[in-house]
Amino acid sequence: MEAELKARARLTPAIEQAIAAIPGADEQRLRKAQGHLDSLTKPLGSLGQIEAVAAQYVAWRGEEPPRVAKKAVYVFAADHGITDEGVSAYPREVTQQMVRNFLSGGAAINVLARHTGSDIVVVDVGVDADFESVAGLTHRKVCRGTRNFAREAAMTEAELNAALQVGFDLAAEAAAHGRTLIAVGEMGIGNTSAATAITAALTGQPVLALTGRGTGLDQQRCLSKAQIIDKALRFHFGDFDASRPDALEILRCVGGLEIAAIAGMVLGAASHGIAVVIDGFICTAGAAVACAIAPNVRNAIIAGHLSQEPGHRVLLESMGVKPLLQLDMRLGEGTGAVLTFPLIEAAVRIYNEMATFGSAGVSEACSQ
Amino acid sequence: MEAELKARARLTPAIEQAIAAIPGADEQRLRKAQGHLDSLTKPLGSLGQIEAVAAQYVAWRGEEPPRVAKKAVYVFAADHGITDEGVSAYPREVTQQMVRNFLSGGAAINVLARHTGSDIVVVDVGVDADFESVAGLTHRKVCRGTRNFAREAAMTEAELNAALQVGFDLAAEAAAHGRTLIAVGEMGIGNTSAATAITAALTGQPVLALTGRGTGLDQQRCLSKAQIIDKALRFHFGDFDASRPDALEILRCVGGLEIAAIAGMVLGAASHGIAVVIDGFICTAGAAVACAIAPNVRNAIIAGHLSQEPGHRVLLESMGVKPLLQLDMRLGEGTGAVLTFPLIEAAVRIYNEMATFGSAGVSEACSQ
Repeated sequence: MEAELKARARLTPAIEQAIAAIPGADEQRLRKAQGHLDSLTKPLGSLGQIEAVAAQYVAWRGEEPPRVAKKAVYVFAADHGITDEGVSAYPREVTQQMVRNFLSGGAAINVLARHTGSDIVVVDVGVDADFESVAGLTHRKVCRGTRNFAREAAMTEAELNAALQVGFDLAAEAAAHGRTLIAVGEMGIGNTSAATAITAALTGQPVLALTGRGTGLDQQRCLSKAQIIDKALRFHFGDFDASRPDALEILRCVGGLEIAAIAGMVLGAASHGIAVVIDGFICTAGAAVACAIAPNVRNAIIAGHLSQEPGHRVLLESMGVKPLLQLDMRLGEGTGAVLTFPLIEAAVRIYNEMATFGSAGVSEACSQ
Repeated sequence: MEAELKARARLTPAIEQAIAAIPGADEQRLRKAQGHLDSLTKPLGSLGQIEAVAAQYVAWRGEEPPRVAKKAVYVFAADHGITDEGVSAYPREVTQQMVRNFLSGGAAINVLARHTGSDIVVVDVGVDADFESVAGLTHRKVCRGTRNFAREAAMTEAELNAALQVGFDLAAEAAAHGRTLIAVGEMGIGNTSAATAITAALTGQPVLALTGRGTGLDQQRCLSKAQIIDKALRFHFGDFDASRPDALEILRCVGGLEIAAIAGMVLGAASHGIAVVIDGFICTAGAAVACAIAPNVRNAIIAGHLSQEPGHRVLLESMGVKPLLQLDMRLGEGTGAVLTFPLIEAAVRIYNEMATFGSAGVSEACSQ
């Protein structure tokens, strides 16, 4: 029994306490929101997922009228020891190069943040570079990347909790700043390997079926990546596919610092009543750990898009969330999440601005 | 031979001439656009359909730098004689009621046009109502709705050409106004029946597999709708599933005035170098007829979304276009098309604003 306890990472009491207070789905608010949507001049349910996200957002925020304010995307960057195994098409230094690209405004996420009127917050939670003098960066480095999870645990319990706290604290800042809708994104060469390992361990699905091309592996290196991940999971957890390991311990052993920060931000957003759009496979891995720890978090989460990584679909389905976009994207950075901001804002405006059948003098459907 | 010629509707010489001049896909421009996208700081192709739509738009417009200007949605409204057969969940007068709702700004398309910064042009091409004194409406009424295509041809050749001309002329006005990107939408109680009939006749697929709930039919009335459509097609065209009728004649016999106007607008947009986003099943039916008449039109068309109508997927696949959104929508009005404006604008900004690997000092992928 004691041995079992020792094998599990534990949350800090502050986070434990905050997430215990996250409310469940408010069925009454959801019914009320759907009732209002049904009174608008359109056939029942004819706006599909736009109505679903409107109802979710309205019920989750609990404001009348609902509003979207001070949108932002938080991009968490970190390096990964697993890159020593040759699991990525890009060299490790691309993580820090892309962080500099984010800061100079030239990356895809910068363009999309500008386009959608969102702030962008770039967070160094564990990049293997000296950024001390770099302006514009949110400095929260826990350490210079994870350890190689093919050989040892990616993080110590202290590192894990420090990374979770980074996201959790930034969610509190977002709430203090008046943000109602945020997105999470990431940058970290090697992090599809970590996300794949987390997905396999959380769901018990075979690693090979979950492993994708990442940023551009060929077929042979993709197979080698799957073998490395499968071997690592058996090293840490034994028969992970027969008996599911603890979610937090999965995150510690095979996760990443940015994935932990994202999990912390999702937990924090949920505890502050902020709606959070998750991006692709890596962000979803962080959100899935958050949901495993505190299932009520689910009500705060909007799935941005379905990426081309095969594990992403499996993970979203396991969480019971349906992505808004399916555009064959696989970039990360928060790009697929931020692209949904105009859709979510459209949904809220539909809720607020459409005429009702009564007010517009439009006949309702004949009884059948 | 003469009999066969008599059984085909003919375009006016002006339209014939204009569409003969529509250029084919410009492979050189497409390669150049994709080459530029490949130089940007992201893994090759990692923005998926966003890159595809950027390349299409850039190549189609042929401007450097590309830009999106003066967006608008054209909503064509008309009534349908086929409603006499009880094929719709809503009474016929909802067409005119919804036109008034569009003019007072309370419909879903109004909200989405405002949200996306688009003008909205509401066109009466054949509503069964007296709108003479109504301000804000674009008055182009050809007649007060089509005839019941279960019993006779929906339109005469003169009516068909008048309706095509409405859309064709509005495209010329859009070009004169400097619009580079437009959407088409529609309102017409009964028009999913017309779109289903067009789809079956164009593709030869069985009517039953193509017939959907429209704005809200139950299972039994949906089956009855399919039987009415199948019978009508055999009345007009005999074994339409064995030998495909002429596209323009299909439009005349079982189409709608708004569908013809949409076909005309797609032809006109293509002849003026405007990119046109098609909405759901009904608009796609109009665009499919346009493509059948002039295949080069295909390069001007962006498919907005995949609706819940089963025939829509079949029709989009037959045209070889892939929709940007799949949100289980089935409202029409142009809603699914206008929702893609922010995505298309994002794609163009990605093209214009992202840093290249060279300029940002980011390493490219290792050779594998």
